[in-house]
Amino acid sequence: MRRGVFCCGGELVGRTTRLLSSSSRSSPAASAVLEATPQKKVIQRAPETTTTKTTTTTTAEQPVAIAVVGGGRMGEIRCQHIARSGGARLEAFVDVDPSAAASLASRHAGCEAYVALDDVFATKKIDAVWICAPTPAHADLIATSARASAHVAVEKPVAMSAVDIRNAYDVCEQHNVHLTCAFQRRCDASYAAVAEAVADGRVGAPRSIRSVFRDHPAPPTSFLRDAGGDPFHDIATHDIDYILSMVKQQLNGSSLDHHPDEVWACGTSSTRELRENGVYDAATVVLKWKRGDALELCATLDIARGSAYGYDQRVEVYGTLGNSVCVTNQPGSNVALNDNTGTHRGPLVHSFPQRFDQAFAQELEFFLECVRGNATPKVTSHDAQLATIVAEAALQSARHDTVVKFTRDDRNDELHLRYTPTTKPPREEPTTRHAAAAVSA
Amino acid sequence: MRRGVFCCGGELVGRTTRLLSSSSRSSPAASAVLEATPQKKVIQRAPETTTTKTTTTTTAEQPVAIAVVGGGRMGEIRCQHIARSGGARLEAFVDVDPSAAASLASRHAGCEAYVALDDVFATKKIDAVWICAPTPAHADLIATSARASAHVAVEKPVAMSAVDIRNAYDVCEQHNVHLTCAFQRRCDASYAAVAEAVADGRVGAPRSIRSVFRDHPAPPTSFLRDAGGDPFHDIATHDIDYILSMVKQQLNGSSLDHHPDEVWACGTSSTRELRENGVYDAATVVLKWKRGDALELCATLDIARGSAYGYDQRVEVYGTLGNSVCVTNQPGSNVALNDNTGTHRGPLVHSFPQRFDQAFAQELEFFLECVRGNATPKVTSHDAQLATIVAEAALQSARHDTVVKFTRDDRNDELHLRYTPTTKPPREEPTTRHAAAAVSA
Amino acid sequence: MRRGVFCCGGELVGRTTRLLSSSSRSSPAASAVLEATPQKKVIQRAPETTTTKTTTTTTAEQPVAIAVVGGGRMGEIRCQHIARSGGARLEAFVDVDPSAAASLASRHAGCEAYVALDDVFATKKIDAVWICAPTPAHADLIATSARASAHVAVEKPVAMSAVDIRNAYDVCEQHNVHLTCAFQRRCDASYAAVAEAVADGRVGAPRSIRSVFRDHPAPPTSFLRDAGGDPFHDIATHDIDYILSMVKQQLNGSSLDHHPDEVWACGTSSTRELRENGVYDAATVVLKWKRGDALELCATLDIARGSAYGYDQRVEVYGTLGNSVCVTNQPGSNVALNDNTGTHRGPLVHSFPQRFDQAFAQELEFFLECVRGNATPKVTSHDAQLATIVAEAALQSARHDTVVKFTRDDRNDELHLRYTPTTKPPREEPTTRHAAAAVSA
Amino acid sequence: MRRGVFCCGGELVGRTTRLLSSSSRSSPAASAVLEATPQKKVIQRAPETTTTKTTTTTTAEQPVAIAVVGGGRMGEIRCQHIARSGGARLEAFVDVDPSAAASLASRHAGCEAYVALDDVFATKKIDAVWICAPTPAHADLIATSARASAHVAVEKPVAMSAVDIRNAYDVCEQHNVHLTCAFQRRCDASYAAVAEAVADGRVGAPRSIRSVFRDHPAPPTSFLRDAGGDPFHDIATHDIDYILSMVKQQLNGSSLDHHPDEVWACGTSSTRELRENGVYDAATVVLKWKRGDALELCATLDIARGSAYGYDQRVEVYGTLGNSVCVTNQPGSNVALNDNTGTHRGPLVHSFPQRFDQAFAQELEFFLECVRGNATPKVTSHDAQLATIVAEAALQSARHDTVVKFTRDDRNDELHLRYTPTTKPPREEPTTRHAAAAVSA
Repeated sequence: MRRGVFCCGGELVGRTTRLLSSSSRSSPAASAVLEATPQKKVIQRAPETTTTKTTTTTTAEQPVAIAVVGGGRMGEIRCQHIARSGGARLEAFVDVDPSAAASLASRHAGCEAYVALDDVFATKKIDAVWICAPTPAHADLIATSARASAHVAVEKPVAMSAVDIRNAYDVCEQHNVHLTCAFQRRCDASYAAVAEAVADGRVGAPRSIRSVFRDHPAPPTSFLRDAGGDPFHDIATHDIDYILSMVKQQLNGSSLDHHPDEVWACGTSSTRELRENGVYDAATVVLKWKRGDALELCATLDIARGSAYGYDQRVEVYGTLGNSVCVTNQPGSNVALNDNTGTHRGPLVHSFPQRFDQAFAQELEFFLECVRGNATPKVTSHDAQLATIVAEAALQSARHDTVVKFTRDDRNDELHLRYTPTTKPPREEPTTRHAAAAVSA
Repeated sequence: MRRGVFCCGGELVGRTTRLLSSSSRSSPAASAVLEATPQKKVIQRAPETTTTKTTTTTTAEQPVAIAVVGGGRMGEIRCQHIARSGGARLEAFVDVDPSAAASLASRHAGCEAYVALDDVFATKKIDAVWICAPTPAHADLIATSARASAHVAVEKPVAMSAVDIRNAYDVCEQHNVHLTCAFQRRCDASYAAVAEAVADGRVGAPRSIRSVFRDHPAPPTSFLRDAGGDPFHDIATHDIDYILSMVKQQLNGSSLDHHPDEVWACGTSSTRELRENGVYDAATVVLKWKRGDALELCATLDIARGSAYGYDQRVEVYGTLGNSVCVTNQPGSNVALNDNTGTHRGPLVHSFPQRFDQAFAQELEFFLECVRGNATPKVTSHDAQLATIVAEAALQSARHDTVVKFTRDDRNDELHLRYTPTTKPPREEPTTRHAAAAVSA
Repeated sequence: MRRGVFCCGGELVGRTTRLLSSSSRSSPAASAVLEATPQKKVIQRAPETTTTKTTTTTTAEQPVAIAVVGGGRMGEIRCQHIARSGGARLEAFVDVDPSAAASLASRHAGCEAYVALDDVFATKKIDAVWICAPTPAHADLIATSARASAHVAVEKPVAMSAVDIRNAYDVCEQHNVHLTCAFQRRCDASYAAVAEAVADGRVGAPRSIRSVFRDHPAPPTSFLRDAGGDPFHDIATHDIDYILSMVKQQLNGSSLDHHPDEVWACGTSSTRELRENGVYDAATVVLKWKRGDALELCATLDIARGSAYGYDQRVEVYGTLGNSVCVTNQPGSNVALNDNTGTHRGPLVHSFPQRFDQAFAQELEFFLECVRGNATPKVTSHDAQLATIVAEAALQSARHDTVVKFTRDDRNDELHLRYTPTTKPPREEPTTRHAAAAVSA
Repeated sequence: MRRGVFCCGGELVGRTTRLLSSSSRSSPAASAVLEATPQKKVIQRAPETTTTKTTTTTTAEQPVAIAVVGGGRMGEIRCQHIARSGGARLEAFVDVDPSAAASLASRHAGCEAYVALDDVFATKKIDAVWICAPTPAHADLIATSARASAHVAVEKPVAMSAVDIRNAYDVCEQHNVHLTCAFQRRCDASYAAVAEAVADGRVGAPRSIRSVFRDHPAPPTSFLRDAGGDPFHDIATHDIDYILSMVKQQLNGSSLDHHPDEVWACGTSSTRELRENGVYDAATVVLKWKRGDALELCATLDIARGSAYGYDQRVEVYGTLGNSVCVTNQPGSNVALNDNTGTHRGPLVHSFPQRFDQAFAQELEFFLECVRGNATPKVTSHDAQLATIVAEAALQSARHDTVVKFTRDDRNDELHLRYTPTTKPPREEPTTRHAAAAVSA
């Protein structure tokens, strides 16, 4: 099993995957081969940071000293998990709003409040920083941390653009610290089990992947209208990274990159007001790979802002064996009522803090292992860039009503996106006579 | 509720839909308005056959005398349902193979075997014909039946091309007999209930429809390789017609046609042999409607030849209320085993004869009502043409690696498909600098 | 696998049991041994009719000529299944009400109506009779059939009392015809698969069996009040026979009988009116076997007249491996609605004609095989008697508020029931001081 | 809704119960009446402690200072929940083993280790004690706490016998502190929602309750053999208390006690070794109430030590409306694999720490509310006694192969258990001639 490429692994997923491994089709020998396959570099000719560098490590005996930056919901969640972990110590909480910083810090014994990350490094010995601040601040905070030799975990996306993401990884590499991006599906027991089942060949070669991400609860319309809120970058990236990581597994051992060959997307608005403001609150994204024997796959992503029935998170992978493996939804309770109208169950799990509680805990533990020098972040610079590039391609496809194709320039190993912007008049294509005749009255 | 547009309705679906109707959001007044809305013509300026013609009817007291043509699996199934129905009498079975004809006829008391449909009309009084012969024979058999004043039901597709389909409907109209196409989802209790729930506004305006049709059991590879076997026309048309019929419901009362504005598709092959022979055995189809307040919707269809786990037939409709309504899969048994690897259930229902048994019975009963003059077929000439046109567009999209767009010529009310065939060299599009920069090493 | 003891077997259950047989713990050798184990006589010292007699058979080529007696719902269902079967011909339908007889007969080509079974034999050659008349008429109809050398299938119970049941079997044996009782769980694919899984040792030795039978739709209260309607004999016998047949499998090869050692039951009434009329419309029955290594098992049966949510038919067998195997409920449709109150599905399958359609077909086919001399009825005289005796014991337990114990008289191999009727004053038992003290104020 | 009687209530269960409350049959007026109904005393003529006393309270602003006693798994869990709660401060951890005490204390900032509870009170200001020590130590620890004016929560059972339980409650009442017993179903969102649905009349009057408690993972056989391990007191008490609490709700407003009228039980052993040592590792318990219009109900409890497929915790309540409401099992993951043998899911949730995490948190919060004087424990002295008495009755029923009946002595309001010990020779009952005849050969 090629676990090394994808998941944050570890004990927590063991139980879940037992179901799937109990009747593995791979012979032991074949598995051994697969396990032994070294992780090939994926795009770049230059060796990847994550496989070769010597990282600054702390001894396992000492709890890892962590500063958390940013007081939103994720900041709170990360602080809670750090407080619960036996391997970490929450040293500092940073928020530009002093009262927010003080309030959260006061809830954790030994944690001090700061308004600037620089001040933390000036006064404390910090091993690692977890950045939950708004995305525009990520690049500076990452650089500050790297210069202070602190390892970095950052909420997705790593930075505002693919270029910025690459730069962020580069600065961390220069200062010999790890940078990891919190795509929590990588550490979720169920998503990880499905990815492992696919890597183990349980469905054959994947041919169709269908994911659903319908957020819950819905944000206020005013928020969507005013803040824009692009579902491709905000929501779809989680599934994009997850699907790309499975493709990467499939291509492991080949020299091919895992970027899709084609992206098609369609955004919709649930109200006229949103539509007139150009805001999508639901969308479909299609990713296509057509590389013959190596990879032939179509993935469809269904995303929406406001499910009414709870937090809907699913994926299904169907392959050449005619099998499928699925992440199914998590119920919000264990209650059923049977009456003369049928069987009724309550809504799905409320939202991400409940659904991904285990994944957030595992993400932390895996990051601590990276900080200690025992592991390497799974989300590489290329992975993080590609998730953003594909999300951007989807946005452009939807906005410009076109297909976006990826091509590679062999001279400089660059990836290009090609599409027809709507600002140009569409070219007149020859009408297909057959069809035209068919529907005339 | 606009049931008139879509389903074959009737008693059989009553029980299923009770769940959904029990808490309908539509006020009684609103429902009444909807029910009273006359069925508007959909594309053509000329009035549709189905709403105005006077049909030849038989008295309800007499069983309808039926001839079945074609001895494949569907022929057998139709004969069985006719034999079980109190309202029909199987008078004749026609197959070009005399022994096949004799064999099947011998299993039904009172049924005689023929090798040609003309001979049936020469010797028997026949009210209706059910055509299960191979598609290339449909057009002639329909014309023969119409000329003999027999109503016609035909397995999908009605004919080989949209033009032939229109001609088939025209000849039936000229001879004042009904023609209906057996898209059985229209009569399936669960598919009908979902369509009705959507029509009733239970999900709001639909924004995303996701269907799955994975056939079971898989045909032999040799069959696929030699017979070609196009999954768009063979399989996807069922979901295409079903989805289009729901769109038609949404547009009911407007002058807009329900054809999609855009079709994108991708076909894959499960083996190198199939790929080298240009045979897809799995595919994804995307249909897109972007008409502002009137209709904004993306549908994704997942189709495959050979599910390993039983007959997989699903659809899910998500709308602006944040609700979804789904046709879920039908288990093949009611058995579960719990052991130390988890919970195990058997495969899904075996195949279409089991899954759609109720739908086939209901299709027959509804057709008999049409023959008796009490009802009008739901699948109109335009519906049948459009299903074929969209399937063809999907095939062209997959083959030519392009998007197919539908445009309407206002001068003559013709529908055109526009796309870029791959025989032409792709035009050089300006590279997006942003993205290109992002991924360079 | 000891399939021979229990189920009506055959092709129909093959698919369902594949789930369970795919990872059977039995080695091939062990299975062979089990298959080869001859069916031991179960109670009586005298050889059982079913294993040794030479039956009157018809050639397989000729359809079996059947008369159906009794025009209730089961009569109709049996006629339909006979009409659909390729191996049988419905020759006659008998009902004491001439118009009922004529009405049903007219719906089946070649079937003639009669008011007395004797008249059928006087005018037709009949191979077998299916008796669906009211229970009090069973004994005479069976005897009439046997004397006319016609094999007999009869709806449960075979006759009004265990004595009458034995006599009915005896008369059939004397006339060398088969008698079988229609306990349809024996032929239901799911119930059969569970019984086979238990026989195959998939749960280990069974320790707990829990069954549910909640009928649907509910009969009118007036019917229950006036007709009495004893849920133990009317409803629970199906589960009693099913559970006893699994116990018989477990004891196969031993000289022990499968009767329970103890029966405890409690009946309840849903309204005061029913209670005042002594009518139970729900009940719990407990069966206990305590025979050390040979058999240690408690079964609880939950029965009710009127489920609101559809036809509820379940069983669960838990064993010493810590595994369980279950018959789960059959949904009435494949529709789900997700909204802000949760997930909603419609009621379960409507009632027995829908739920047991496959079982009724299989029962007929197996009976035809018996008539043809290729098989032997699975429900033996002893089985049929015991189902009635246990139902009666449950009734007495509930009525007399006591436990009923079974003991065997070794002198004459008789089975005795012992219990304390409520007409006797309860004996004063010593109060347990410990408990009494505990709850005093 | 009579929430006051049963559950620990509060915010956490709100979401779950939304499903059920959305279509409540109770009119708002009726609900108001029910809510306003004062909690009647249940058995004792004397007013219940819990409704009238003035408790020692702490101000809400100060975290409640807690000592935890006992270092088993529950001790760890309670410490974790206290550490996570904003309203409590873990001041001391007590274990007779100094290293165990030190180890656990060291994991919680501010928590000190002790080997005796007396020493804690001598050196710290403690508001409340949570007792997780072995049951034999409970009585002394409770008395010690009460004398130090500390409120007490204790793992079940409160003490070794019903008498000891009453004494424990009495000593707490004398010292004006609360005593509560941790029956966690009372605080589990799903169990609470089901109890509330029953109280709200969603199923009508309950007629059948079926619960399952199959523990996971299985303890070693040697543990069971040597430590005895009585499943009635160890396992079944949770369901007994839960079911009794629902019965108490039903009787609310009447003067009747909720003790069952009859208890029947059967224990089984999964191996010969256990059987020969008199150890049951699975059992069935039946509770019966027959009080006419007031209460007519049969409850069956299925308990087992070692489920192989995860932690199986279910209950189902069926009532006079023909409806049922259920606690269903919690899956252990969100993964499904579909292959040619069917659909496979992993085991259920692993064990009680996972399944009841929310309940343990809610139990703590509710206890803190009691400590603050804002609430009263739901498990009364009588409740705690009765759970133990019924478990003991089940044990006696199984051991003595008899039914245990409860009778009340009106002279002194004492509850008596009556049953026939097996040491006495069974009385010869008249054989039922009918049945005996039926089965003779």
